[in-house]
Amino acid sequence: MENRTDYVHIVHYYETDKMGITHHSNYIRWMEEARVDYLSKAGWDYAKLESLGIISAVVNVSCDYKRPTKFAEPITIRASIAEFNGVTLKFAYRMTNPDGVEVCSGTSLHAFLNETGRPVSIKRKFPELYEAFRVLVAEEEA
Amino acid sequence: MENRTDYVHIVHYYETDKMGITHHSNYIRWMEEARVDYLSKAGWDYAKLESLGIISAVVNVSCDYKRPTKFAEPITIRASIAEFNGVTLKFAYRMTNPDGVEVCSGTSLHAFLNETGRPVSIKRKFPELYEAFRVLVAEEEA
Amino acid sequence: MENRTDYVHIVHYYETDKMGITHHSNYIRWMEEARVDYLSKAGWDYAKLESLGIISAVVNVSCDYKRPTKFAEPITIRASIAEFNGVTLKFAYRMTNPDGVEVCSGTSLHAFLNETGRPVSIKRKFPELYEAFRVLVAEEEA
Amino acid sequence: MENRTDYVHIVHYYETDKMGITHHSNYIRWMEEARVDYLSKAGWDYAKLESLGIISAVVNVSCDYKRPTKFAEPITIRASIAEFNGVTLKFAYRMTNPDGVEVCSGTSLHAFLNETGRPVSIKRKFPELYEAFRVLVAEEEA
Repeated sequence: MENRTDYVHIVHYYETDKMGITHHSNYIRWMEEARVDYLSKAGWDYAKLESLGIISAVVNVSCDYKRPTKFAEPITIRASIAEFNGVTLKFAYRMTNPDGVEVCSGTSLHAFLNETGRPVSIKRKFPELYEAFRVLVAEEEA
Repeated sequence: MENRTDYVHIVHYYETDKMGITHHSNYIRWMEEARVDYLSKAGWDYAKLESLGIISAVVNVSCDYKRPTKFAEPITIRASIAEFNGVTLKFAYRMTNPDGVEVCSGTSLHAFLNETGRPVSIKRKFPELYEAFRVLVAEEEA
Repeated sequence: MENRTDYVHIVHYYETDKMGITHHSNYIRWMEEARVDYLSKAGWDYAKLESLGIISAVVNVSCDYKRPTKFAEPITIRASIAEFNGVTLKFAYRMTNPDGVEVCSGTSLHAFLNETGRPVSIKRKFPELYEAFRVLVAEEEA
Repeated sequence: MENRTDYVHIVHYYETDKMGITHHSNYIRWMEEARVDYLSKAGWDYAKLESLGIISAVVNVSCDYKRPTKFAEPITIRASIAEFNGVTLKFAYRMTNPDGVEVCSGTSLHAFLNETGRPVSIKRKFPELYEAFRVLVAEEEA
């Protein structure tokens, strides 16, 4: 998806801790920001998913901290869909600082539920969304 | 309410900022923690209010920061009902560190709404809750 | 300062609460974001202030909540310097939603400290910064 | 460590999101709360580690979300040291709700740095702490 721009988060003062660097919990939130931005740019924002009655639940997150980041630094976050099997969706994230150095990488795994909290087969129930995710995965692999 | 114990919040590492002290935004959250605890001890926890169809909206907060607080310090928060006129409720908060020094004082103002977001007269619709708030205010004034 | 652009914060999912709207504590953080942005655009970012040995401590915040805001809404925040007496600085904030409706207004009061935590007279010690704040206040009043 | 009590975190209102449940990012913060509590009870609180000039950096976190949690629920968090090789330390966490149902499990990996940010061999430099961690791991394995 060459025409997509990566998401940029500027580190807020309230995201730093007494060590003088960004507190590690915030990267989990930045993943969500980048994921929301990615889906929106792909034409599938939360409002659209919700209007279809689809709820996405976070099943797992994992995060490798490679370099500290600092107040006011713009951090570039590249989100991509790493896996999609019709039931769960895995996002991968790569975060870099203004010098282009990787500061963090992570993944998040998501399940799709209907409004009563039961797992939903995207393939059967929402074939258009299924196709969209398949195309996004294929683009990453290309 | 002599038999009520004050609420204690121990400062978390993730609540500090690069200045090495608690970030000022967290005190607003501690007010909420102390308010929830106060109402629960008074027999009117959120579940009970919600079951009555009452939603409480924050209309204003104000906070005076007097002394910095530090990671791992237990901060004692004394919440009290400062004003209640049947439509809005004002809480006051006084926070002290382990040396008994006041570190912060603040207020929050709340309006009561029904489930469609319209203001509710507690006096007319929920006389039992009205009486409870009146008693709590009177106790503070005594 | 007609050439300054207002600060925009898009409401994050993690900033919402179980009422379905933005939790009130986040507006205090948005004030900080807008303040940092304002000072940076005015040529006085935190790095510059810190290099001068100036620490700014929040003395008070106050916030009036007027309308709820929702996930993914872009909120425009106009920060301005409301008062400056050489010792303390007061910021005012006005937040509007995409319909131009005011959702929140607030203020924050700041004192200037040196690295040992003692109050500093900006007028005597940092005349260039003193002049800059005076000009910014005058522009607001004009 | 049979005499240690597990850490309990009561879900705060500001930790919920518009889905009506605890936002997933907060569990990463609760891990830190439980870790700080664990080390403190084991006689090695942050103040003591800092006084030795030891900084602990988070290298990785991973978290499996098993059941949602709700506002006001007391969540019991059992922290334990899963691995310690003298250079890095791995904590494991198991969180249960009031019904004893596991809601979340996770791990965090920590490296030890000196004040200039360089890795420190706990074994060589701080033999007393080395022994303490070894004993804690052995107790978990017993």
